Amino acid sequence: MIKRLAIIGVGLIGGSLARALKRAGACAEVIGCGRDESLLRRAVELGVIDRYDTDPARAVAGADVVVLAVPLGMMEPVLRAIAPAVDARTIITDVGSAKGSVVAAAAAVFGTVPPRFVPGHPIAGTEKNGVEASFAELFQRRRVILTPLPETEGAAHDTVRWLWEQAGAEVVDMAVAHHDEVLAATSHLPHVLAYALVDTLARMQEQAEIFRYAAGGFRDFTRIASSDPAMWRDICLANREAVVSMLDRFSADLAGLRDAIEREDGAAVAEVFSRAKTARDLFCRQERLE
Amino acid sequence: MIKRLAIIGVGLIGGSLARALKRAGACAEVIGCGRDESLLRRAVELGVIDRYDTDPARAVAGADVVVLAVPLGMMEPVLRAIAPAVDARTIITDVGSAKGSVVAAAAAVFGTVPPRFVPGHPIAGTEKNGVEASFAELFQRRRVILTPLPETEGAAHDTVRWLWEQAGAEVVDMAVAHHDEVLAATSHLPHVLAYALVDTLARMQEQAEIFRYAAGGFRDFTRIASSDPAMWRDICLANREAVVSMLDRFSADLAGLRDAIEREDGAAVAEVFSRAKTARDLFCRQERLE
Repeated sequence: MIKRLAIIGVGLIGGSLARALKRAGACAEVIGCGRDESLLRRAVELGVIDRYDTDPARAVAGADVVVLAVPLGMMEPVLRAIAPAVDARTIITDVGSAKGSVVAAAAAVFGTVPPRFVPGHPIAGTEKNGVEASFAELFQRRRVILTPLPETEGAAHDTVRWLWEQAGAEVVDMAVAHHDEVLAATSHLPHVLAYALVDTLARMQEQAEIFRYAAGGFRDFTRIASSDPAMWRDICLANREAVVSMLDRFSADLAGLRDAIEREDGAAVAEVFSRAKTARDLFCRQERLE
Repeated sequence: MIKRLAIIGVGLIGGSLARALKRAGACAEVIGCGRDESLLRRAVELGVIDRYDTDPARAVAGADVVVLAVPLGMMEPVLRAIAPAVDARTIITDVGSAKGSVVAAAAAVFGTVPPRFVPGHPIAGTEKNGVEASFAELFQRRRVILTPLPETEGAAHDTVRWLWEQAGAEVVDMAVAHHDEVLAATSHLPHVLAYALVDTLARMQEQAEIFRYAAGGFRDFTRIASSDPAMWRDICLANREAVVSMLDRFSADLAGLRDAIEREDGAAVAEVFSRAKTARDLFCRQERLE
């Protein structure tokens, strides 16, 4: 059991983790930290956290585990703010959607990545955000990827794994760079495409009329374009090398498909569509089985 | 009330229309036609149609209204097959997702587009298909776009509008070319992007692993990539001019976004993402209001 857990950023992810751990009886005390005091008060009212402090250094003082659940662009300033208040026994983890940039931020702040810093990423979320949207079941049967470094302490790694397992997640380990490539493919690229598509349509003259004739497929396809723009800007910039590389790969494939459509090459078009359908149907079947 | 309605192609759309019209008491008799006799027998068992004929000319003989609910690539051969069996009183309509190609097919078969041919397109569907997936409510509060030509007879137009209203749809009129541009933007482009994305990922070496870390956002984003590949090949080829034009517009916008990410221009990235979120949230609110 963790005696004192500090969560910096009590939004959808931080709030849901706090709820899950409290429900599992995995933490004696959860301290929240954030910039908006009214939201922190609300988090206490909702029973998500036990108490709060708007000052990160005070919030983490004496904590056994610190969870950074802030946008990627805030990771370095927050690490800098808590650095004087943590000691060699404090386990630090984060929930950032890109890992290379967080590891670099930790190295920049501490000189070297602290052995008790365990980078992490829960593959969970909705297009909503904020503590009001948080719920204890968010991580149930979801995957959490940890990307420990060679210098990461085994005991710290074990504690963070245990913490996510208490929240109902399945924890896997992965190398930092590999995590960033895989997530660029399955998460960051789809978000960029959804935002780009809606923006292309929104900038067409007939936009009001165009959206009028959009159907259910469009609503599903663009759901992720309702995600928090600032959060996704941060993710794209933090993981820009892998995102740009995936965008280039996708754009080249798309150009080939466009040319096949233009030259009326039905066989080439059908080949791409069929292969995609097979892969997508398989993905859904596997997801149900697991 | 329509005395005899012939539906060529008793799949998701044709089957759902038959169910809706029978439930509304809008048709005395519904005759189905298709190539697979076992599916037609099943459609009779399910009460979707009253009887069937696998020969299109026999199926439409004596029908007041003929609905072509076959893939776009089949429109011309089916029109050719029924041409000898229809007369100047037969109203013909279709459900194709592109309208220019169907109008061109009718002109090719009949020499000129028959005044009683009313091109139509219900903006409804799921990624499933086949008569087993059909249901009477599919068109409830959905839009159906009719694209009558200057030479289309008013009475035929009225009958087809009435028929879709009986099925619960809201019917609007649009010019053929405009329909094809609007649908290229809101439906055909998203399908091409979803297929292309899944195919790009499926062709990466680590594909099994990559899909393992895909989350709910990816499932929603790629749902339309589980649609029937042959149907969508037909749609892309039938509407290729508008689809290629939209693909070019989108690809240029995407290239701009890619460059903004690469040069770490957070303001430019956030501008696109925010504008998209605003448009998408507005689209969802309007959809709920209507």
